[in-house]
Amino acid sequence: MSYMDIALAAGIKARGISNPNPPVGAVLVKNEQVLSEGFTGRPGSPHAEVMAITAAGDAAKESVLYVTLEPCCHFGRTPPCTKAIIEAGISKVYIAIKDPDNRVSGKGIDRLQKAGIEVVLGLGEKTAEVDLEAHIKLSKTGIPLITAKFAASLDGKIATSSGDSKWITSEESRARAHFMRFETDAIMVGVNTVIADDPRLTVRLDGKTIERQPLRIVIDSFGRIPEKSALFLEKGATFIASTQGFKVPDNLQNVTTKPFPSKAARVDLTAVLKHLGNIPVSSVLVEGGSELMGSLFDEGLVDKVAAFISPSIIGGRSSLSAVGGRGANIMSEKYRLVDVSREFIGPDVLISGYCEKGD
Amino acid sequence: MSYMDIALAAGIKARGISNPNPPVGAVLVKNEQVLSEGFTGRPGSPHAEVMAITAAGDAAKESVLYVTLEPCCHFGRTPPCTKAIIEAGISKVYIAIKDPDNRVSGKGIDRLQKAGIEVVLGLGEKTAEVDLEAHIKLSKTGIPLITAKFAASLDGKIATSSGDSKWITSEESRARAHFMRFETDAIMVGVNTVIADDPRLTVRLDGKTIERQPLRIVIDSFGRIPEKSALFLEKGATFIASTQGFKVPDNLQNVTTKPFPSKAARVDLTAVLKHLGNIPVSSVLVEGGSELMGSLFDEGLVDKVAAFISPSIIGGRSSLSAVGGRGANIMSEKYRLVDVSREFIGPDVLISGYCEKGD
Repeated sequence: MSYMDIALAAGIKARGISNPNPPVGAVLVKNEQVLSEGFTGRPGSPHAEVMAITAAGDAAKESVLYVTLEPCCHFGRTPPCTKAIIEAGISKVYIAIKDPDNRVSGKGIDRLQKAGIEVVLGLGEKTAEVDLEAHIKLSKTGIPLITAKFAASLDGKIATSSGDSKWITSEESRARAHFMRFETDAIMVGVNTVIADDPRLTVRLDGKTIERQPLRIVIDSFGRIPEKSALFLEKGATFIASTQGFKVPDNLQNVTTKPFPSKAARVDLTAVLKHLGNIPVSSVLVEGGSELMGSLFDEGLVDKVAAFISPSIIGGRSSLSAVGGRGANIMSEKYRLVDVSREFIGPDVLISGYCEKGD
Repeated sequence: MSYMDIALAAGIKARGISNPNPPVGAVLVKNEQVLSEGFTGRPGSPHAEVMAITAAGDAAKESVLYVTLEPCCHFGRTPPCTKAIIEAGISKVYIAIKDPDNRVSGKGIDRLQKAGIEVVLGLGEKTAEVDLEAHIKLSKTGIPLITAKFAASLDGKIATSSGDSKWITSEESRARAHFMRFETDAIMVGVNTVIADDPRLTVRLDGKTIERQPLRIVIDSFGRIPEKSALFLEKGATFIASTQGFKVPDNLQNVTTKPFPSKAARVDLTAVLKHLGNIPVSSVLVEGGSELMGSLFDEGLVDKVAAFISPSIIGGRSSLSAVGGRGANIMSEKYRLVDVSREFIGPDVLISGYCEKGD
């Protein structure tokens, strides 16, 4: 294991903690000994580099820093990491990837070099690009990373003909899905899913609702969400995207709303995603229903797919399948997944990958 | 590896060869040496036991026979195997399972015992029951073993919204599907699949159409199959099940047809399957389309599922999913698979198992 691998492993500890900040990891090394590790904490707490430097204390002087993302050089919620690195007397910095955020991009490296610190860029680049993909997508496009997650039978159904959807996949798969929620900034559903299933849309680990909850986003073009929806009573915030604005009932805390332009008679999803990117939300886990999924695929807005497939048959020409919308017209227009991973979870198969269009 | 395992392995060689006879294997052993092996050949050729006995010649005397199915004692297309066993002077016979066919069931064992041959029943029973499942189902119910096979995207689609269905899964999966055709007695499709895709419905191994072809069955309630359908020109026979009878064009060889009672305005599928059982057809691979699959599941006629799932998204509220029909009304009415096998084939996942209803 290289020192950069240790930094990458530290970064993984930040997942679900640092959101919406990128899950960065750092390690300080001196005389071939690891002095300390750091990873980005909750927004407002020290970044990975500063955590490692603080932990090392005076020993940080003349040490070598390995960090998965270019250190920041601007005042955000915390002071610039470059300042802390320079003041600590660090002599060399290995950086996996340049920060695509244009408040930093290259400027952090410049600052370090001007202070006489040797900088080496690119070690562990491939892995860091995956680990920090949400941050990269958001920085480059202003739009969060969109993952379409669903649980379906072998015939692709997400509910029976009467709308019953509990449960298609196993307890093990549902536990994994909660972990995916934990790692994301926001969960998105269409209002029909709220009406049909009245989901809580919270992260529950080992059955317990944890403290930090991803933002709940409901696409509700015409403000149809029932006031008594279960999700309104949960920890964390809810955001409702409508075309007309939506009157938030007085008694509901932590519910915000915003009108968006309409497109094909519902909210313009790109406008919603851009707004989310500005909040910022860096990653969104879309959990249905069929028509919201269909619209996102139809508009080419989905980056990743995570499909939990259960060894079952639901059938029914009128039961909903995982992805509605217009769909592909001819086979060469389908989405195929690349960098696919296939995993057995309980009796189910989780198939994940990145969306690419065409053959 | 036990001697019965060798007999079971020999039986596997009969798959796709012995149809519609069961793929039985046999081995002759003397002084802890395997003398010879046998497996059931094409209908009309010697059964497994006789093949092994013939191969052993005079050495068969005083040897021990291991056979996966109770030897037959009646004249079918070949003389009774019990006669050959007795005449060869075999001293002991191990049998994995009793033949459920009531022309044999127990009578074969009786015959052997009456000739002074020691018979041991049950060695390798579990495996033999799986290997000979089509024969068992047909013998017990008069209905062939029905396997629903489909290739779908992650969202369960078998075609795009315009009906394009070529290709969803990979070349590797399609090769496997041809092998599944090879092992079956008959392939069944609905007439809409013939109209939409004009399939050949033949076994092609390494791209070549082999000599023995499974019976092609088209469920065509109203006689709509186009005269120029590609399958009419292929090797092997085609059977068309309609409600009204179907006029076979004069120039078509090997096409037979029969009218069946109607049920819910199409052919009664149970009546069709019983007719097939009488032919006999012991196993049917159903390859769609969506509505035929749905009807078979709705009527509880499916024994096994083989779903090739491709890492792709087709989408579309109006594109066909693998299983139509009425479908499950509530989740506890879905079919779940048991004895599931999950296999990676090229980029796809093949999920197979036996259908059970309810949770």
